[in-house]
This record gives sequence, structure tokens and C-alpha cells, in this order.
Amino acid sequence: MKHKPDNIIALATPAGSGAIGVIRLSGPDVIGIVNRFFEGKLKKKDLNKVQSHSIHLGYLKTNNKILDEVLVSVFKNPHSYTGEDVIEISVHGSSYIQQQILQLFLKNGLRHAKAGEFTLRAFLNGKMDLSQAEAVADLIASDSETSHRLALQQMRGGFSNEIKKLRDELIHFASLMELELDFAEEDVEFADRKQFSALIHRIKKTLKQLVDSFAVGNVLKEGVPVAIIGAPNVGKSTLLNALLNEERAIVSNIAGTTRDVIEDEIVLDGVRFRFIDTAGIREAQDEIEMIGIRKTYQKIDEAKVIIFLMDACKASTSASCHKPEENTVLEQVEMEVIQSQFPDKKVLAVINKTDLADKLDYDIDPKKFNIIEISAQQKTGLDKLKNELTAIIKKGELNQNEIIVSNARHFEALSHALEAIVQVENGIDSKLSTDLLSIDIRAALHHLGEITGEISTDDLLDNIFRNFCIGK
Amino acid sequence: MKHKPDNIIALATPAGSGAIGVIRLSGPDVIGIVNRFFEGKLKKKDLNKVQSHSIHLGYLKTNNKILDEVLVSVFKNPHSYTGEDVIEISVHGSSYIQQQILQLFLKNGLRHAKAGEFTLRAFLNGKMDLSQAEAVADLIASDSETSHRLALQQMRGGFSNEIKKLRDELIHFASLMELELDFAEEDVEFADRKQFSALIHRIKKTLKQLVDSFAVGNVLKEGVPVAIIGAPNVGKSTLLNALLNEERAIVSNIAGTTRDVIEDEIVLDGVRFRFIDTAGIREAQDEIEMIGIRKTYQKIDEAKVIIFLMDACKASTSASCHKPEENTVLEQVEMEVIQSQFPDKKVLAVINKTDLADKLDYDIDPKKFNIIEISAQQKTGLDKLKNELTAIIKKGELNQNEIIVSNARHFEALSHALEAIVQVENGIDSKLSTDLLSIDIRAALHHLGEITGEISTDDLLDNIFRNFCIGK
Repeated sequence: MKHKPDNIIALATPAGSGAIGVIRLSGPDVIGIVNRFFEGKLKKKDLNKVQSHSIHLGYLKTNNKILDEVLVSVFKNPHSYTGEDVIEISVHGSSYIQQQILQLFLKNGLRHAKAGEFTLRAFLNGKMDLSQAEAVADLIASDSETSHRLALQQMRGGFSNEIKKLRDELIHFASLMELELDFAEEDVEFADRKQFSALIHRIKKTLKQLVDSFAVGNVLKEGVPVAIIGAPNVGKSTLLNALLNEERAIVSNIAGTTRDVIEDEIVLDGVRFRFIDTAGIREAQDEIEMIGIRKTYQKIDEAKVIIFLMDACKASTSASCHKPEENTVLEQVEMEVIQSQFPDKKVLAVINKTDLADKLDYDIDPKKFNIIEISAQQKTGLDKLKNELTAIIKKGELNQNEIIVSNARHFEALSHALEAIVQVENGIDSKLSTDLLSIDIRAALHHLGEITGEISTDDLLDNIFRNFCIGK
Repeated sequence: MKHKPDNIIALATPAGSGAIGVIRLSGPDVIGIVNRFFEGKLKKKDLNKVQSHSIHLGYLKTNNKILDEVLVSVFKNPHSYTGEDVIEISVHGSSYIQQQILQLFLKNGLRHAKAGEFTLRAFLNGKMDLSQAEAVADLIASDSETSHRLALQQMRGGFSNEIKKLRDELIHFASLMELELDFAEEDVEFADRKQFSALIHRIKKTLKQLVDSFAVGNVLKEGVPVAIIGAPNVGKSTLLNALLNEERAIVSNIAGTTRDVIEDEIVLDGVRFRFIDTAGIREAQDEIEMIGIRKTYQKIDEAKVIIFLMDACKASTSASCHKPEENTVLEQVEMEVIQSQFPDKKVLAVINKTDLADKLDYDIDPKKFNIIEISAQQKTGLDKLKNELTAIIKKGELNQNEIIVSNARHFEALSHALEAIVQVENGIDSKLSTDLLSIDIRAALHHLGEITGEISTDDLLDNIFRNFCIGK
């Protein structure tokens, strides 16, 4: 996927019916080519001679036949999205017209752009680094406040500026140390070992913060996974439906009706939550066996928040609907087991069917668990539950200014860079020879460069940009 | 639907996923409002002070939070689509972002535009006349070369310039004649009756041409209706499917399988053809009764071209598959009856199932009917049939420079104007008094004014613009 500076074209707006569509062209000859088919409406215009960032009303004509009345926006290199000459043609929102215009230019020196090719060119021409280019795709895909914010932050530079700076400093030391190797017999030290050690420490600290932030970043980007677990018939599907406000899961009184794991999403206060419905994970009839929650472990492991749903009738020791042979002691134990197994997850003790119980009195220790009373059927208490959900994320995880890594590729490269830096640090501590140290430094430089695209392979670029839409 | 110069906003590109979306704003305050939320990316920018038709890269920000990196295009009144100040914001193609930006401006002095409201403003501000405004909607809906050309011709002025000129001349005479009425007792003649008579004659000629062109214009805009008729089992549905290249009609060997009238379309050489499948119109078993084609009359009446389909085995007097008791004499009679009943329609004699007959020899007079041999099943001869179809339209009807009326509203107004003008002409011939003549002149002026929008009512405008899409 080497960059040949040919001329590319694509429809940049969605297909379908609308007032207008925008066709985007980029390449060394696009202004001249469009000019051949353009005729100013009010006065003669030579697009070759107009200012950059100017708009021109006129007709696209071929063989004396008008294709459309259009607005042509001219962006001259390097002051354009791709860094090349760029033309955007605003045409009427008819697929027929758009196809005619695309065909005209495809026959006259342009080639249909591949997915993400405009942004690829922007990267190759130094208009943005690789992580910024990746953020463009994230931005287009963003569908909640947090995914939007993460993408924008990354697009505006995010952590890549800092990485670039640290990498440059590291290169400086690396070159000094390579120089030392040339003078190996003279036993000189060009690189100040104390400064070098301090730099490695700084890099390690930064990388560690970024690597750690991925746990949050990934969750925010993909949605916070929430598992709803509880005994059969406790109302898991009803709660999910009440939260989703849609009857997506089959609700019935018969235990085990919901056969498939259903994932669905809501956006609360700008944060996306992804619900994992855990049907059929409680097949055991025996209470004790139910404590053996191994079957729920997988779902719990995927979740960040666990809604532990209990029946008010069972939970209540005094409610009129209380079944005297049952109590919530086992539930309390079960929650404690889960919490100790997964200390980083938040467990919410949610008592359902409170509309059926006339008095509520639990065996759940409110010091250990946050108790929320709801009726999924009557849709009461749900706001409190939603507030608890958003509070978990807002309080602990979201600092508006904190830089968060949300891209799996960056996470991987950062992790590898961190490993290499730790190796370097260990090498310094154990007084490793400069030539061996250099190998680890180069590995770190490689992985740091992968993030910003200073190190990139055709395969990597191919992988990144093929997920873009055409026209971007 | 009076024009209040408030500020309107709408998404102008189709909803859905794409590289970019365009949000359009129009009104007296839009530049100032957008400027409050805009921050130039490279340097400080005051959109109030920039040139018209210029593009500016920057951020849309609210409460110090970036909504998106955008391109803002500024069009200053009157040099804009609507004639007001117009801003177009090119944003990333995320529905989330687009909604956020729309919400921002809806909360800050803008109102969501109604369907066609931008074009309505263009009309009200004299940027285009009514027939041109209507052509914008036609242009967006255009899906073939001819509908596209008709819309463009109309948008560029079409016949409305000529109508306007003729109307102005008529107004001149009308005012002179009204003046005569003021001096009734003195029996003066300000208006030269000879010149007036010549003008009326010119107007009549022009209107008649335009009214007559609607038969073609309407057909070209809506598609040329083609009826396929013939005996049961002759292969009407198979032919339709072969032409459409899709199995849209149920094809079977059992006569009368196709229960419903199916209309479908193909574009041949830039002209749209609309096929009318005429299932079940031949329920009679008796050959003689079949000549009584009353049941097919309605469909034939709708059509412009009639494909009269015959069976090669029956049509052929010498083919191996020939049924000796049958021949095509009756078909020839039937075609002649149709042609005499509908002299303006083109009847094509199409012999199907030629793959089954080893020798073809018809009773159809080739001087009277163009014979086309096909096999719908084997898809042979179809190109010749298609060529015949396009030749009918191309030869007789399409003159690239001829002005053609394709809008039903214009046809109606032109017809009314023509009626009134004929009345005026008759009045002149029968030496009608000036005061009575004036009434007919005023009626003609009214109807001519309706076309270009010089005469318009809120209801009329409402009717026209509600068929537009939002954002145009």
C-alpha cells in the first residue's frame, strides 16, 4: 500500500436521498481536471487561479451537456485534509447525478479511492500521526459522549505527542550509546548514565499510566459491561427490558425462558453500558450447588459491574409474601464469594419485586453491599439503579483531563514498549554491557514508533485503514 | 407560510454512516451564532469578518468542550442559495456528533427547517422563480438521463423566462386598455389593436407548444408506459422478467398465474420505460370474444407503447410446433383494431418462443407492423426489442433543444392560460368591448403568473415545498 501520488475520488457523504452529496477528490492534478469540466455560473473562472479555501458556484459540463449545478470547494496543498490538492464538489442529492459525476472523473484521470485512503494520505503526508488517523475512524463511529470524547482527545494529539517527545529523547541517548560502542576500546561514556536512568524511569512511569488506562479506555469505548445475575424467576429479563425500555428478551414466568445470552446497550449520562443477560446459568436446583457459581464466572469475568438480583419476598424476613423456608443468607454469602473472587468489580445488591412485599428486611449487610430496592415490573427504583451505575464510572474512572488509551493496537504497542523499557531498567541496575542494553533500547524505540506511525509497515497501514469508510 | 426571516438549520446530507455530513444554516444571524461556538484551528478567526465563499477549519466548542473538528463554509447574503447569510458546516459522519451539533444550535437561536424551506427562501428572496424551485426537487429525484435533463433545463430557466417576457408584454397592453376604460367616454385607443392581436397570437402559439409538450414531458419524467398484451401462456411474464432481468413476476406454465398488475421499470439509453404487466385481461376462452379487447383497453389506454406478443408456433404456418387449427390472422386483426382505436400509440408485433419453431412464417403484414422475433425463455432477440423501444422515443419525441413541460402543475396553469388567451382572441375577433376583454386578459395574466410564482398563494407554496426533502 505504497503511496503513489495519483488522483483519487469518492463520494464522502452517505449514499441515499438527501438535499446534497459531497464528492471528494485528492491528488496532484485534481484542480486542473475539475477545471476542464467546470464552468462558472456568473463569470468565467479558472480554478487553477483561485485562492485556497474558496468556493465556486457553477456547472459541471461534459460534451456541452450539463451534469449538475455544483459548488466547488478548492483546497490547495499543503493546506488540505490530505496535504495534497483537494477538491470537494457539493452536488444535488440524486444518486443518478452522483454516479454520473463519479463516472465522468473516473474516465478522466481519477481512480476510485480505497477505504480510508484520504486519511492514509494525510498520514503519509505528515498531516497527522497514525494514532490521530485512527481517531478519525473512531470519531465517525462514536455514538456516546465518552466514545466521542476519547476519539476527539486522540485526534487532537492525545498521548502521542508525549510519546513522540520521550521517544526523541530516547533516540538521543541511544545514538550516544551507539557512539560509545564505536569507541569501545577507549572506554568512554558519552551518555550520562544518571540522566539516562532518569529518562528510562520517566518513560516507564508514563507507559505504565497509559497501559493501565486501557482497562478504563476500552470499557468506555466498547461500553461498560454489566452482568445481571440471580436465581431463576427473580426477574433478570424483566429488569433488562425495563432498563432497555424494549421487549428484546422474552419475558415469562417460567424459569429459564430466556435461552440465549443477550447483549444490549443503553447510554446513561454519556456513558454506554452493555448489558450481559445471563440466562440459563443457574440450572442447578440445589441451593448449595447454586453457591457454586462457577457457571456464572465466565459472564462475571466479562463484566465490570454485577447486578446481583434478589427476590424481595425471599429477601424480606417479614414481608407478607415471605416464604418462611427461604432467606437471603445464601445470597449474601454468594455475593461475598463473587466480590472476593473479583475484587476489582462492583457488585450491586438489587432487591426486586418490592411491590409484592409489604415490609422489607434483609439479611444483607448494608456496610458490605449497596442495597437498591426496585420493582422491574412496576418500573420503580430504576432511576436509583441507573444513578448507581453512572456513579461507579464517573467517580472512579473519569477524569476529564486524564489521557486514556482506548485503542487495542496502542495498548499492545505500549505494553511491548513497557516490557522493553523494564528490560532496559533491569539492564542498567545489573550493569549490563552497553551493546546488550542497546538491543532493548532499540526494541523500545520500535514499539514506541509503532504508536505514532514513525515505524509502520504496509501490512499495519493496510490493517488500520481498511476499517475506514470509503471517502474518508 | 409567510416568510419570517428567522434562522433555520437542517442536516443537508443523507442520514447514515459516511465520511462527512453537512449541516446547513440560513438566516440573518447565522454567521454571528456560529462564530460564538467556532474556534479557528490554526489562528483566531472572526467569521463575521471573513469573505463570502470562504472555508474555515476549526473546532465547534461549547462550555470548553469540543464537539467536532469542522470545516465552516460562509456565504454572505445575497450571494447564497437562499439569498440570506448561509453557513454550511462539514462535520464528521457520526450521527451522534451531528445530533449534538444540531442540538447546540437549536438551543441557540435556530429552528429546525421545514421540508424545502431553504429553497422556499431562495424563491421568496428572488433567487429563482417558482418553476426553477420546483426543478430542484425534480433534480434530486431524477434517476435517468431524460428526467435529469428535463429537471436541469427547468432549473436553468426553461420556458419560464419566455413566459415571463410574454406576460410582461401582456401586462403592458392590459394597462393601456385599462387606461382606455378610464377615458371610456372619449373613445380613445391607447393600445394598438393590431400589435395586441399579434401578441395574443404569439402567446397562443407558445402556450400551445408548451401544453402539447406535456404529453411527452410527462411520459419522460414518469417513464414511458409499455403494455405487454397477448393470449394466455404466450409468455408475457417471462418477457417482462427477461427485460427486468429479475424474477419479479411469478412465471409458470399455467395460464393466468400472474394475478396482479405489476409495474416495473428499466432505463434504456437514458429513457425510463415503465412496464405494465397485463395479467388476467384475457379470461375469455373463445377466440372471437378475445378479439373483443375491451378488457385490455384500459391498460392500452395508459400505455404509449404496446408489445403485442404472439406464439411462434401459432404464428408460424410451417414450424414443426405449429398447431394446424390455429394461425395469426386473428392477431393481425386484433392489432389493427388496437391501432385504429389508438392511432397515437406504437404497436410492436413480437413473436415469442422462436426457439421452439424451426421455420417462421407469419400472417402478419410487415408493412403494417414491425415484426420482432424473440425467445423470452432463451433471452434471444431482446436487444432488438429494446432498440425498437428506445428508437420510438428518440426518433419522434426527443429534440435536445426543445423545451418540454414535465410538471403537472405547470401543464394545468399553461392550459388555463391558453383557454383564457383563446377567449381573448375570440373576443378580439368578435369585437368584444374592452372592459369584457380585460377580464379574460386578467385571467390569462393570473395563470401565467402562477407558473413562475409571480402569483402565488400560501397554499400553493405549501403544496409545492412540502414534497421537498428537509435540508433543501
